[in-house]
Amino acid sequence: MATHSARNNYMKLPATQQIARRFSNQTALIGVIGLGYVGLPLLLRFNTSGFKGLGFDIDEQKINALNSGSSYISHISHSQIKSAYDRGLRVTADFSQIKHCDALILCLPTPLTSDREPDLSHIIATIEMLAPYLQRGQIVSLESTTYPGTCEEELLPRLERTGLVVGEEIFLVYSPEREVLGDPVFEARDVPRIVAGYSRACLTLGTALYEAVTERVVPMSSIREAELTKLLENIQRSVNIGLMNEMKMVADRMDIDIFEIIDAASTKPFGFTRYYPGPGLGGHCIPIDPFYLTYKARLLGIDTRFIELSGEINRAMPSYVIQKTEWALRQQSKNISDAKILVLGLAYKKNVGDPRESPAIELIDLLTKQGADVSYSDPFLLTFPKMRNYQYSLVSTELSASILSSFDVVVLITDHDCFDFDLIQAHSKLIIDTRGRYRGAITNVVRA
Amino acid sequence: MATHSARNNYMKLPATQQIARRFSNQTALIGVIGLGYVGLPLLLRFNTSGFKGLGFDIDEQKINALNSGSSYISHISHSQIKSAYDRGLRVTADFSQIKHCDALILCLPTPLTSDREPDLSHIIATIEMLAPYLQRGQIVSLESTTYPGTCEEELLPRLERTGLVVGEEIFLVYSPEREVLGDPVFEARDVPRIVAGYSRACLTLGTALYEAVTERVVPMSSIREAELTKLLENIQRSVNIGLMNEMKMVADRMDIDIFEIIDAASTKPFGFTRYYPGPGLGGHCIPIDPFYLTYKARLLGIDTRFIELSGEINRAMPSYVIQKTEWALRQQSKNISDAKILVLGLAYKKNVGDPRESPAIELIDLLTKQGADVSYSDPFLLTFPKMRNYQYSLVSTELSASILSSFDVVVLITDHDCFDFDLIQAHSKLIIDTRGRYRGAITNVVRA
Repeated sequence: MATHSARNNYMKLPATQQIARRFSNQTALIGVIGLGYVGLPLLLRFNTSGFKGLGFDIDEQKINALNSGSSYISHISHSQIKSAYDRGLRVTADFSQIKHCDALILCLPTPLTSDREPDLSHIIATIEMLAPYLQRGQIVSLESTTYPGTCEEELLPRLERTGLVVGEEIFLVYSPEREVLGDPVFEARDVPRIVAGYSRACLTLGTALYEAVTERVVPMSSIREAELTKLLENIQRSVNIGLMNEMKMVADRMDIDIFEIIDAASTKPFGFTRYYPGPGLGGHCIPIDPFYLTYKARLLGIDTRFIELSGEINRAMPSYVIQKTEWALRQQSKNISDAKILVLGLAYKKNVGDPRESPAIELIDLLTKQGADVSYSDPFLLTFPKMRNYQYSLVSTELSASILSSFDVVVLITDHDCFDFDLIQAHSKLIIDTRGRYRGAITNVVRA
Repeated sequence: MATHSARNNYMKLPATQQIARRFSNQTALIGVIGLGYVGLPLLLRFNTSGFKGLGFDIDEQKINALNSGSSYISHISHSQIKSAYDRGLRVTADFSQIKHCDALILCLPTPLTSDREPDLSHIIATIEMLAPYLQRGQIVSLESTTYPGTCEEELLPRLERTGLVVGEEIFLVYSPEREVLGDPVFEARDVPRIVAGYSRACLTLGTALYEAVTERVVPMSSIREAELTKLLENIQRSVNIGLMNEMKMVADRMDIDIFEIIDAASTKPFGFTRYYPGPGLGGHCIPIDPFYLTYKARLLGIDTRFIELSGEINRAMPSYVIQKTEWALRQQSKNISDAKILVLGLAYKKNVGDPRESPAIELIDLLTKQGADVSYSDPFLLTFPKMRNYQYSLVSTELSASILSSFDVVVLITDHDCFDFDLIQAHSKLIIDTRGRYRGAITNVVRA
């Protein structure tokens, strides 16, 4: 820390202010690297806030799609892309363009390896691709969720190797994304932004950068704190969902509907927060991020037992759903192996078309391996998406009375509001409800 | 359930309505049994809402105190007691008076045995004491937190033994207390009330009873659901505090202040709820209630792993505080065994005088056993309270610059707002802060 202060004393403040002014008057060129679920919306947000914006991705398909005016993310329309181009947005796979940007915002995936350890390969490969083009005065901001120490241990030395003095000549910022997929209430601009910097100048410039697109920036005193903050948000969510999944199984044994209990507990105006159980975790954050902390804690010789426990319970949920399905079919003298099964909802979350880590997909895989004849219906994913671990050439089944009645069992995984739940209830032989969509005793509904 | 419906058909509805009217026009005599932290405030609430109110307790000391116009609960004033008497409140240890009451509300402790199993002895002893005096038309409502099945397995058969038909002639209600100690925001009247009844008539009458003192009654379809609801509220709290305690230890190993992280995460307007770590759980609910579910689940052959884990971690917190104290003293070449230690705060919660299950008391015990010379300061508990497991003849130390500087270490356990934290920080040699009251790097403050 002493070295930062020393650096700050030598820092030419007017230069920092000059750079900051380019963000407040929208003349800065904002480079966003990684145009996925986080990067593309962020790039569009800068663009609608008055910046031109230059997007980078190694995936030529994404670049071509955007250049031809199409969106590949279901909640972003083609016309949004076209309007952004009209306002000067450009995207490229040519990383030499990096040199023209004032800020480089890295929106890269941080998945787990098959051993459930952090996979920083996307970040490391990207920073090495950028390095040759980095310029004095640029800001490099990482938005990916990762363990405390990543920026200082992995990014800092690679930036230092450019010969530029980090914190003085080039500025390292960490600001975890808080993108909220398909949330009707919160606009991205209204969600406060955590920002931390390697030096005081880094924090000043990071704040200037994000204030251009966010109502409120929350500065933190170190990058490691900001890294842990984002993890804690997702850890709390994972643990609370895990708790509700355990409580669901306990309540089920007592023949009590956990959804009724959660709703009643939520009437307490303090001290209780509503989380629902489900068929397992999905998405790119909650099932994965907590294990980033587990990894780092283990290196320091300390356990993260809540994370391990919630991981274990949440991962067991698809099997639990299958057990309940098996049990319910058996009551009708049927087996999974020769059942015709319709999975309702493929996306990991309602009202969006994002299939990442969706438990529906694991469920389809498990049921298919047991010999079931599995179809699915999801108006947000009309064809079964390409996944790293699963390959199915399925298309979404359109729901009707006769279609529904042709299945032995309908497994409700994602309760998109656009589903006709009355139709489903009226015409399905058997419904396995993992979302508490049906309440009270209904003869053809089994909770799972 | 079929039997309930049959019963309801025979129920003389006008009679139920006649009883209900006595609650809406405040002519009913409300009997509250057990005049502790829950029962006494409830009795006063009925009294200020226009009912006379008759309190029962087997503890003659409580009866005598109230009859002489004194309160024994720090947040209830003597004048509140006197005014209630002016409005007709009476209390007695004579249980034959039971027969005059329209409603009997049981506010009894449900602690754990030394084996950490539910101790229903207070409930069972009380219902057996009541039984001889029960009358046709009376409502018996239990407010104690307990496992699903308690009312139907323990209360119901004992009520049936009176010869009165439960659900028709005598009415069994369950409505878990949601008393909030020292909360400046929520008035008891504004906190919605969960109510469940053994029959539909029971629910109707329970609703009428509590609507007399509560803005909103939340009816539930069965007593077992209402029993589980209250447990879930406290389980969620216990698990979330346990999680934050674990995260505190992880963050500490990374030299990060968890309080800064929690506050930053709380700026997320959705999906994150602020819970703080601490020196261990206290009070009569959170450390105890979750194990009521553990017990019942075990009987059904199912584990409650989140409850076990949070219990384990939360119970280890006083030892963690001692380890940190030991470490900090060692930096100054001192040992706990010959240290002069001041514990700040004895109550389990800030700004109240309730010592039940307070970790401060376990801490004082552990430190004393290690040979330390321990004092405490708590303006809400001027003398060390009588406890079941601990006996200390200590009185609260008044804080001053010279007093503070005479101690080797000050351990902040309960951060009552009335403490002068600047004075404490200015004059203590060493502060162990378990509440995140001091932020940033302060030379004489160690986080624990």
